[in-house]
Amino acid sequence: MIKRFIVAYNKSFYFMYMANIAIAGATGAVGQEILNSLAKKEFPVNELKLFSSSRSAGNTQATSFGPYILEEFSIEACKNIDIIFFAVGGDFSRKYASELLEKNDKIIIIDNSSAFRYDKNIPLVVPAINASAIKNSRLIANPNCTTAILAMVLHPIYKEFGLKKCIVSTYQATSGAGNPGMQELLHESKNYIDGLPVENKIFSHPIPFNLIPHIDVEQENHYTKEEMKVTWETHKIFEDDSFPLSCTAVRVPIIRAHSESVVIETKKNITENGGLEKVREILINAVGVTLRDDIQNNNYPMPLNASEIDEVQVGRIRKNLVFGDFGLEFFVCGDQLLRGAALNAVEIAELVKI
Amino acid sequence: MIKRFIVAYNKSFYFMYMANIAIAGATGAVGQEILNSLAKKEFPVNELKLFSSSRSAGNTQATSFGPYILEEFSIEACKNIDIIFFAVGGDFSRKYASELLEKNDKIIIIDNSSAFRYDKNIPLVVPAINASAIKNSRLIANPNCTTAILAMVLHPIYKEFGLKKCIVSTYQATSGAGNPGMQELLHESKNYIDGLPVENKIFSHPIPFNLIPHIDVEQENHYTKEEMKVTWETHKIFEDDSFPLSCTAVRVPIIRAHSESVVIETKKNITENGGLEKVREILINAVGVTLRDDIQNNNYPMPLNASEIDEVQVGRIRKNLVFGDFGLEFFVCGDQLLRGAALNAVEIAELVKI
Repeated sequence: MIKRFIVAYNKSFYFMYMANIAIAGATGAVGQEILNSLAKKEFPVNELKLFSSSRSAGNTQATSFGPYILEEFSIEACKNIDIIFFAVGGDFSRKYASELLEKNDKIIIIDNSSAFRYDKNIPLVVPAINASAIKNSRLIANPNCTTAILAMVLHPIYKEFGLKKCIVSTYQATSGAGNPGMQELLHESKNYIDGLPVENKIFSHPIPFNLIPHIDVEQENHYTKEEMKVTWETHKIFEDDSFPLSCTAVRVPIIRAHSESVVIETKKNITENGGLEKVREILINAVGVTLRDDIQNNNYPMPLNASEIDEVQVGRIRKNLVFGDFGLEFFVCGDQLLRGAALNAVEIAELVKI
Repeated sequence: MIKRFIVAYNKSFYFMYMANIAIAGATGAVGQEILNSLAKKEFPVNELKLFSSSRSAGNTQATSFGPYILEEFSIEACKNIDIIFFAVGGDFSRKYASELLEKNDKIIIIDNSSAFRYDKNIPLVVPAINASAIKNSRLIANPNCTTAILAMVLHPIYKEFGLKKCIVSTYQATSGAGNPGMQELLHESKNYIDGLPVENKIFSHPIPFNLIPHIDVEQENHYTKEEMKVTWETHKIFEDDSFPLSCTAVRVPIIRAHSESVVIETKKNITENGGLEKVREILINAVGVTLRDDIQNNNYPMPLNASEIDEVQVGRIRKNLVFGDFGLEFFVCGDQLLRGAALNAVEIAELVKI
């Protein structure tokens, strides 16, 4: 902690200090995007530590902050760290979080895994929605990618019209399985086109020119865990579980942007309360959202225009035929690694008090 | 007409004659699959005429019935034909259907275009569902691919539990745009992987590793025509428009099988009427449907196991969280060229009286 700053976020101003930052999982797809987002936002980084697996430790990684030597993670190595991003996996987070918080009584952990998301004592945060949930917590969970992308668009509509029902079908990119997922898609697609055998190591079936309606393990109710995460986490982030939400999660042969087809029933009559024009106005003004709703000019959300972009794209907005004046349907697309993970985590870091 | 046969369809027996068959659009993806389906079903083909564009006329096409010389279509050339498949497009169908029926008072037209689907005097048929709608009609419309695939699974459930609401999101293959669509996917995907410029001539945006929530033109209600086709045609085939149905239609980088995520609200309480076991039993017994509903063993519908297969695959069956005991959710996948077009058309041909 060296210097105090004033930073702007979402039209409010916050005090922030130069911070010693660490990333566990720095060589992964999310870890790399955390580095990129920190740099792009000119986050006041003082010291920076990049933790990797023991296999990669000692290697040098080029970053926007210059070259850094990768280190193996240890509690001891975190002693001067103010904020650490956990971008490894649930097992890592469960193994180290408590001890790290205990041994370093100032450190703040922003955890990208699902390990603590459903713990009612741990805030689960999308900064544009529930920044206030952070309070003084030193462990903050970053939501599932599909949830974070959906919530950016759903919450402003929820605030205006209320929400009675929500039905989601997803089109999820291979980046959800990290760099190995994206590599498997591109490498095996080339094999397919070249007439060579197609393998699958990361996904449960070959992914080239295929799609797989199975992400994470089956639950007792026959939804997958990935699908239930969207229900559980949306309820927690909105601090409201009064509206049922169902999801079908499908892996598609896309590199790094998730798409979602969303149908909702609202509490308020949309037609009597401004209609689609009002919905568009709300979404134009929503933080972190870009309206692409002009099908006549071929303008709508797609992985092609959402990848490597901070904002979630929304379009194909229409009154839903099933729920009539209380029904709304739209299509969203967001970068899985940014809004779905790294960018959200860095925006949380902008909010915490160190 | 040479010889009378008895053929079996759906556990009933029908009389059928050796028929003189023609295909308009024989070189297209659907035309080729009509030929394959006729051969596979050992359809009693006597004469066979293959019509193509004037550009291809005179070329020889290899078929399962031997080599045939392609001819340019004319009303005159159809004079001995008993059944003609129209697999060209709406404009062609509108241009020639009336005159052909008038000049050849025995010919039966099975039209794969959307030209006559919404004409209340023209039957729109999925043979497993509404074969009886054919009556003595000499012009029969073949449904939209997404509708035909959905209907095979939805109708048996509808018969058992009734239907109050239906919400569909699709994952539609490039074969919906014919051979040029499939070729664009494979060719441009190779360009993408090789780092070469990616073009789009068939689709409104580049399709490799992208998806496009825009198929056919926008309607006044902001749904696309492709989406509304599913609503209009399902109502017509079921002879029941009492249940609202909405669809989001999305083109995905898949070769030739369409997938659909389907959520329904039923009239009967599913839990009190046999539950998911009853649903599975119904679908096991449904004509033209294969149950793949074992996520623990990675068995569910995918383009990989639905392509070039006659049966529609269904799985991921679960009670829907939004509609509770009256809610059901499932995932279907069917070959767009077969069940979605050619196979359905040939099954109609098996039913008509010539």
